[in-house]
Amino acid sequence: MSVKLETHWVVGFTDGHGCFHVAINRHPKMKIGYQVLPEFAIVLHKDDIQMLHELKAFFGCGVVRPVQGDRLALRVRSRRHLMRRIIPFFAQHKLKTSKGIDFIRFRKVLHMMERREHLSPTGLETIRRIVEGPVRPERSEE
Amino acid sequence: MSVKLETHWVVGFTDGHGCFHVAINRHPKMKIGYQVLPEFAIVLHKDDIQMLHELKAFFGCGVVRPVQGDRLALRVRSRRHLMRRIIPFFAQHKLKTSKGIDFIRFRKVLHMMERREHLSPTGLETIRRIVEGPVRPERSEE
Repeated sequence: MSVKLETHWVVGFTDGHGCFHVAINRHPKMKIGYQVLPEFAIVLHKDDIQMLHELKAFFGCGVVRPVQGDRLALRVRSRRHLMRRIIPFFAQHKLKTSKGIDFIRFRKVLHMMERREHLSPTGLETIRRIVEGPVRPERSEE
Repeated sequence: MSVKLETHWVVGFTDGHGCFHVAINRHPKMKIGYQVLPEFAIVLHKDDIQMLHELKAFFGCGVVRPVQGDRLALRVRSRRHLMRRIIPFFAQHKLKTSKGIDFIRFRKVLHMMERREHLSPTGLETIRRIVEGPVRPERSEE
């Protein structure tokens, strides 16, 4: 059973339930010691697995995998897909809630990564400041 | 600053973040001893208070009030508003996730209440069964 997803629905659903996340993880094998991992994710109850696949088809990218409990996530981690699919979509179709601010930060980090700025200590520090921003724990989807 | 809300955006946002809830509370003053309280709610971080007012204007009903922590809710509890605004809107513009099932249950309870069935022990028991349905705790917005 396939549902047609309208652009505005996808924007609304992302405003309500999407997550633009940038992890900065320790990574001893990297020269700078840290790895920057941007991710666009939507986490849903397993009842809604079909919707995750619809969204995957809509964006033309991402991987659907289980997360803790009864939930599954559509995750887009490929930088190429983030740059070519996710960023252009939400740049053209503006988020209406303050999740739009998360998106702007996310895009800023990805653009810095395109310029390889995450590989220098100054760039990494700037990314950390962008990512940390104001704390809003209840935004977290997991 | 006002944002125009498109119908599909509101449906997507509700699929992602809306809540159709029916509380059954003890109420000694009522003959049957219980009160049935259906509620449509959207809970957001206080940064998004403007959006709650936009949604209130969109639906033409509801009350915006603080909930615990840094959050606020738009709540529609008036049965008249639920029957005249919320139910017809989501009956016409179908939710796409399994939140649509929550909505169908919610509507079923409201229709029973219109027929005053919540005031009889049999009706109340039926409502309780409809409301309890399969347990999906991660759906809760609070």
